[in-house]
Amino acid sequence: MSTDDKDILDSTDTGIALQDAGHTEQDIKDGLSINLDGHVTSPLGYKAGGLHCGIKRKRHDLGWIISEVPAFTAGVYTTNLIQAAPLQVTKESLQVDGSLYAVLVNSGNANACTGMQGLEDAYEMRRMLAEQLEVEKHQVAVVSTGVIGELMPMDKISAGVKEMKEQVAQTTVLDFEKAILTTDTCTKHIAVECVIDGCKVTIGGAAKGSGMIHPNMATMLGFITTDATVEPAALDLALKHLTNKSFNRITVDGDTSTNDMVLLMANGLAKNDSLSPQHPQWDTFLAALELVCKDLAKKIARDGEGATKLIEVQVKGAESEQIAEAVGKSVVGSSLVKTAVYGTDPNWGRIVCAVGYTSELKSLDPNLLSVWLGEIQVVDNGLPVSFNEEEATLYLEQENVKIYVDLQMGSHEATCWGCDLSYDYVRINASYRT
Amino acid sequence: MSTDDKDILDSTDTGIALQDAGHTEQDIKDGLSINLDGHVTSPLGYKAGGLHCGIKRKRHDLGWIISEVPAFTAGVYTTNLIQAAPLQVTKESLQVDGSLYAVLVNSGNANACTGMQGLEDAYEMRRMLAEQLEVEKHQVAVVSTGVIGELMPMDKISAGVKEMKEQVAQTTVLDFEKAILTTDTCTKHIAVECVIDGCKVTIGGAAKGSGMIHPNMATMLGFITTDATVEPAALDLALKHLTNKSFNRITVDGDTSTNDMVLLMANGLAKNDSLSPQHPQWDTFLAALELVCKDLAKKIARDGEGATKLIEVQVKGAESEQIAEAVGKSVVGSSLVKTAVYGTDPNWGRIVCAVGYTSELKSLDPNLLSVWLGEIQVVDNGLPVSFNEEEATLYLEQENVKIYVDLQMGSHEATCWGCDLSYDYVRINASYRT
Repeated sequence: MSTDDKDILDSTDTGIALQDAGHTEQDIKDGLSINLDGHVTSPLGYKAGGLHCGIKRKRHDLGWIISEVPAFTAGVYTTNLIQAAPLQVTKESLQVDGSLYAVLVNSGNANACTGMQGLEDAYEMRRMLAEQLEVEKHQVAVVSTGVIGELMPMDKISAGVKEMKEQVAQTTVLDFEKAILTTDTCTKHIAVECVIDGCKVTIGGAAKGSGMIHPNMATMLGFITTDATVEPAALDLALKHLTNKSFNRITVDGDTSTNDMVLLMANGLAKNDSLSPQHPQWDTFLAALELVCKDLAKKIARDGEGATKLIEVQVKGAESEQIAEAVGKSVVGSSLVKTAVYGTDPNWGRIVCAVGYTSELKSLDPNLLSVWLGEIQVVDNGLPVSFNEEEATLYLEQENVKIYVDLQMGSHEATCWGCDLSYDYVRINASYRT
Repeated sequence: MSTDDKDILDSTDTGIALQDAGHTEQDIKDGLSINLDGHVTSPLGYKAGGLHCGIKRKRHDLGWIISEVPAFTAGVYTTNLIQAAPLQVTKESLQVDGSLYAVLVNSGNANACTGMQGLEDAYEMRRMLAEQLEVEKHQVAVVSTGVIGELMPMDKISAGVKEMKEQVAQTTVLDFEKAILTTDTCTKHIAVECVIDGCKVTIGGAAKGSGMIHPNMATMLGFITTDATVEPAALDLALKHLTNKSFNRITVDGDTSTNDMVLLMANGLAKNDSLSPQHPQWDTFLAALELVCKDLAKKIARDGEGATKLIEVQVKGAESEQIAEAVGKSVVGSSLVKTAVYGTDPNWGRIVCAVGYTSELKSLDPNLLSVWLGEIQVVDNGLPVSFNEEEATLYLEQENVKIYVDLQMGSHEATCWGCDLSYDYVRINASYRT
């Protein structure tokens, strides 16, 4: 890691989200082993790299993941009705036979709202990498993130892909992790291992987030690799299911981007029997994948633009998991809750207010509602609890703030993640392009 | 107006919203006459006042409107499932015979999440004023705004209501307008006159807004008075209809409060024939009322917490008015659009992105979408227009920024209002209670 990238890489952040989730010895006992220093290259047969091709002024802006053998790949995409050109091209790639050799990612330019030219450029990016790797075009996915509405500087991409050929031996996965960032302040990565059919199976992940982050799939870029052998339909199922419990439960600013995508590649090099819901160890694989998805999701929330804190909202006592999730998103997405946490103000009225305006919540008995800030109860059955304000302020000064809400109207629960709203969110976004 | 209130009253703001709406000679020609210095006391038979009773440290916090004769009154209330005690009591009052003599308003304490004691306190506030005015309890409405979850300091309210009796001659409607404010930086008022059945009819209004403002009725406090004679059912109809086109089309921060309410009182002293949709001049009355509602709504948006600019989003070419409204709210509510406007950055990609994630929008042809910043077109049929960045930046430096979106998918349109997101929003809300 070069010195001039210190500004975007802060090693002290590593692992915060995970430790906070309480994944420690118990998980290893359950057969899962977490590697906080793991990457998308931790599974067998993947290499990754990145470089600066000139879309951005100085930082890395072109990255790639390459699998030795074709990998079955599942994808989830933004729900925004305006989808960037690379999403269309990648969907088309995956429709052919559902497998990929490689992914090419650029940051600094979203290639969104760029019309026919943008689509041609995305096809051309795909062609360039396919030609260089000597694979079929449909075995390459393209992914972009950055400013909307500017044509991709194809000369720079072209030079970058050529340079990649020479640099592929020197650059590492750390360069890939840097190349996908925009206003992120740190890279986000993890790997989890488990044993399936006596074979060591590894799942690795990398992500970028920061702004335009709202829980409505797919709200950021996520890349997950595994050497497990998995049936394509099961891979799709697993990614969709776990995305709903992780990436779709975070919010930074309520803005769902035009470009977001999560790709899950499985190349089968671990040599386990092909996984599907019928496999006796399907749940082990799902648990490992869930760890990766949730860890990346929380790291994205924690690194939201201008964030100083990770906020976790656990809602229980709901009539359905969907309602619990909606209430959680409402609280963690409230600008007033976010600024109160930033200002370490235990102003629980804003939490209660955000519960009450959750549009998915059709009925609510305010007299059953209870709220806690960490272990400090602030509302008991709809009524204020007299609590120690200093203690509550101290609690909110922590980097990981948990809010618990009990609706007492059912038996379902859900956890959502977000971040506080600080001056820096305004600073970053009032002058993003300049 | 006393000197030490200069901080909350800035006379230079007066009329901005209205002038911007282009209501000038044409409206007067149409029989409407706008009085920018008008108040809720401009119609015949109303008096209003306010004072400092001690809920807030220094500023006015108790206000009232009193009609000489009972006034038919329509009300709209927050959609938040958690509704403050005064809302319950006011609804109960209006259910008896739909008419009021008076409204008592306090700021500084919302009387929300205060359980049975809060409800008793709201009834007690109603009783106090009814007794003092020697009217029935159900002829009084109570309204509160401020911090959630703290019991109302009833000794202060009681002393305030007693003091009111002595002060009622000295205080004026300016004191009322100040007494209803929280983090507002200016009072908001207007009056509009028209002639109905040869009688001069006046409609006056006052409002407070600032935070917890989101278009989902009723997102602030609004008080509208008229001396028109109006049938109760028609009054309800008019208020609901026009609220949907005004107060429900503004957003500051997406937070819908527990306390918000708009009351429309009609005391009949203008002596016109009773208005209803069958009356030949019903539309004149509606037009005048619409002016009042929209002007107050825009003033609330312009004075959103930390706002430096009013943002108006006009959406046309939608398949329905509901969709046009939803797209407008999505754009004007986007944190990224709001910060871009604050930073005078013509980053139209964020506008397009917000159009695309409007959940009510089921289909969209990105290739038909056009966007303008004022008169500067930035997107034409889905493609970027090469525009003069400096000119666009200059445009965004204005205090009233208009964004036009044409979906080209239908013939319906709607206009929504909001404000930019500045450092001051964070400052105000990170330390509201301290």
